[in-house]
Amino acid sequence: MLGPSRQTAEKLSKQLYVQATVAIVKPPLKIAVAGLGTVGAGALQLLDRQADLLAQRAGRRIVVAAVSARDRRRDRGVDLSAVRWYEDAAAMAADPEIDVVVELIGGADGIARRVVDAALDHGKHVVSANKALMAHHGTSLAARAEEKGVTLSFEPSVAGGIPVIKALREGLAGNRLIRLYGILNGTSNYILTTMRETAHEFAEVLAEAQKLGYAEADPSFDIDGIDAAHKLAILASVGFARPVDLSGVYAEGIRHVSRLDIDFAEELGYRIKLLGIARLTEEGLEQRVHPCMVPRSTPIAAVDGVYNAVVAEGDFVGRVVLEGRGAGAQPTASAVAADLIDIAAGRYVAPLGVPTANLRALPGVPIERHQGAYYIRLMVVDQPGVIADVAAALRDEQVSMESMIQRGRAPGEAVPVVLTTHVTVEAAMRRALKKIEALDTVLESPHMIRIEDF
Amino acid sequence: MLGPSRQTAEKLSKQLYVQATVAIVKPPLKIAVAGLGTVGAGALQLLDRQADLLAQRAGRRIVVAAVSARDRRRDRGVDLSAVRWYEDAAAMAADPEIDVVVELIGGADGIARRVVDAALDHGKHVVSANKALMAHHGTSLAARAEEKGVTLSFEPSVAGGIPVIKALREGLAGNRLIRLYGILNGTSNYILTTMRETAHEFAEVLAEAQKLGYAEADPSFDIDGIDAAHKLAILASVGFARPVDLSGVYAEGIRHVSRLDIDFAEELGYRIKLLGIARLTEEGLEQRVHPCMVPRSTPIAAVDGVYNAVVAEGDFVGRVVLEGRGAGAQPTASAVAADLIDIAAGRYVAPLGVPTANLRALPGVPIERHQGAYYIRLMVVDQPGVIADVAAALRDEQVSMESMIQRGRAPGEAVPVVLTTHVTVEAAMRRALKKIEALDTVLESPHMIRIEDF
Repeated sequence: MLGPSRQTAEKLSKQLYVQATVAIVKPPLKIAVAGLGTVGAGALQLLDRQADLLAQRAGRRIVVAAVSARDRRRDRGVDLSAVRWYEDAAAMAADPEIDVVVELIGGADGIARRVVDAALDHGKHVVSANKALMAHHGTSLAARAEEKGVTLSFEPSVAGGIPVIKALREGLAGNRLIRLYGILNGTSNYILTTMRETAHEFAEVLAEAQKLGYAEADPSFDIDGIDAAHKLAILASVGFARPVDLSGVYAEGIRHVSRLDIDFAEELGYRIKLLGIARLTEEGLEQRVHPCMVPRSTPIAAVDGVYNAVVAEGDFVGRVVLEGRGAGAQPTASAVAADLIDIAAGRYVAPLGVPTANLRALPGVPIERHQGAYYIRLMVVDQPGVIADVAAALRDEQVSMESMIQRGRAPGEAVPVVLTTHVTVEAAMRRALKKIEALDTVLESPHMIRIEDF
Repeated sequence: MLGPSRQTAEKLSKQLYVQATVAIVKPPLKIAVAGLGTVGAGALQLLDRQADLLAQRAGRRIVVAAVSARDRRRDRGVDLSAVRWYEDAAAMAADPEIDVVVELIGGADGIARRVVDAALDHGKHVVSANKALMAHHGTSLAARAEEKGVTLSFEPSVAGGIPVIKALREGLAGNRLIRLYGILNGTSNYILTTMRETAHEFAEVLAEAQKLGYAEADPSFDIDGIDAAHKLAILASVGFARPVDLSGVYAEGIRHVSRLDIDFAEELGYRIKLLGIARLTEEGLEQRVHPCMVPRSTPIAAVDGVYNAVVAEGDFVGRVVLEGRGAGAQPTASAVAADLIDIAAGRYVAPLGVPTANLRALPGVPIERHQGAYYIRLMVVDQPGVIADVAAALRDEQVSMESMIQRGRAPGEAVPVVLTTHVTVEAAMRRALKKIEALDTVLESPHMIRIEDF
């Protein structure tokens, strides 16, 4: 990049950019930070380095008054000698001197939940980066915050520093959404991107990602779609003004995506992305996380590596795309800071965009009733009549084929065959796949990837 | 698209989505709309159709109490029989019953300015879609609004419904920006996209765009970079916490971009985009609007047609991209609604992100001191020694060549030659181009397009 580096920018902007000429007289906002892992350290660093900038934007200083973490001695890159330390984060949340509790612990229950409960009970504002907590208990926590007249904000819980919660709750608030979707898990997107770029198989790329620290030792949370499901449940609640409904999210991960699928996707003009999709249909609201074939020309197809993106389709605004780094200490710290500035400035918004009493529990649409097009990959014995049998199974379930590819010939041996269908109902598709799997000439369970039309 | 149409979505969400169960008891926010052209009609339609949705998000109803427009009889698609009509929009702005004036007239001075002045003088909040007004008078209007304790908001003035002002003032407020850039003029982006896709020349595509209503009869405002300069001045003020400085924006349009340039760009791995760029350098803040060669792999290169995009590079958040429809009645109405909801909900933010007294007038960097790489296209006589003369002119000004392309041979005739340079200072580049232009073997003024590194 031609521009100055981050360090230079900091030096430059310290000289050029931030110098208050008007005294700030309001009392500072006193915050307590629970959890000082990577994200916690990033947040402390931002609050320290950008203290003047934040004070100007918020109209008052934001001061870290207390922290709680397991390890007191680890270096977090900031001086914490003047800050009160708590062993017990829940006790810290009750500290009468504290205005806001920033919860960076994680986990749907346990200590994180006790901290947030304690903070709300004591009438303190809460900023949380905890997607599991919000996905499981978001509606009741929001109701509790409303009752106490405090803010519960969670921008850092979804898509790192991309201001997507703010965009949905405020920036696009004049729209009825039609569809909301996104690349919500950076690890999965990194794996799929690397599989495409290096032509390696899933297991190899995962192992490499684990070595590089991009994937956890137990990667299930990321690659099985659970993390993305948490985030989708939060986004769908805010976007469609309904209670957070994690149990209504269908989640399927990327373990079954193979190099062959990625190659066929390219050939068919698609990219494979793990998407979270919330969509309004005739029957209610669909919420689903699964690998998708998306047209290569659609903006989200170009979002590669650890980047996240969220796309909102509103009835007035049309399609809005928000893209950025979806995780990491510094982007998440940016989101924490934005939420704190809003609180310090006295800007209030209902946690889920509208008061919880006004949230409508839209009927959910189970995945079996999903309507869409499908990509099917089969491993078959290369012999006459195979395709006819497969086609008959599809016809019997009223599934209409759109295209078929069988590359190469190897009479009597196993060859891959790829089909795409027109729009059909998932239940019919599943029945057809059962019949296809039962054919003698079909050697493996069929692989199915949903095609999403953008 | 597989999802329901806008009409269906509206029907569906009326059933499924919006049904307040909690009574709204706060008094309504009474607004007056000045200017009922396309955008004004769009705003009235949104306020009418989404009235319940807005009331839930804002906590009170938003009611159009007065309007002002030249033509009373035109059908705006909503019933205005119960609304007060004003001949004089400035008089309407003084109406004691009105809480907010929505200014959708346009123009830096004249009636639009009188309306906004009158509204602020009478202590009313203002929402404006007027980029010329904000670019010319933004700082003094912001100061006036602060003094009166009212909101001045202008989300609809930049990039249609993309919530970019909100993202900069609030969502990314914890960051020091390093660079901020965007595709800010849909007409120019449509023309450049169509030139690439159809291989037609600028003049043809412009004429076609005028026929289709995508370009004005007098297109200068759009294609000479003036509109983009207005928007950049506003964004740079909000992004870098400095006074709005339109006079500090260098503006150059797309008239000189030819098909040849577009073809060479593709060959070199670039796309040509009209960008507005604000960048922090060692010397201060650059603000410039001009055609750019951008790497084809960067997200903004893929933003085609009438879409706009804004990219913010922050020290903590990294790169955030916001993309959407940059103009049109409905997207702009979405932005008007968002600003009105914030006002109705009592959420206040300083118009330019920090109080005007704290804005720092960063030194501007004139375009002559810009440092970057350059693409140069020459039309030369195909004879020995031409390239040596050109290379000598560059060397004499310490401009280092990176690549040279001369396709085909036509001894003694005119042929295009394309050069790219390493990073150099614009003043040196310009001196070298003067010398090159003076060469007998160079037949036209050299064409120069700046290369932007992302």
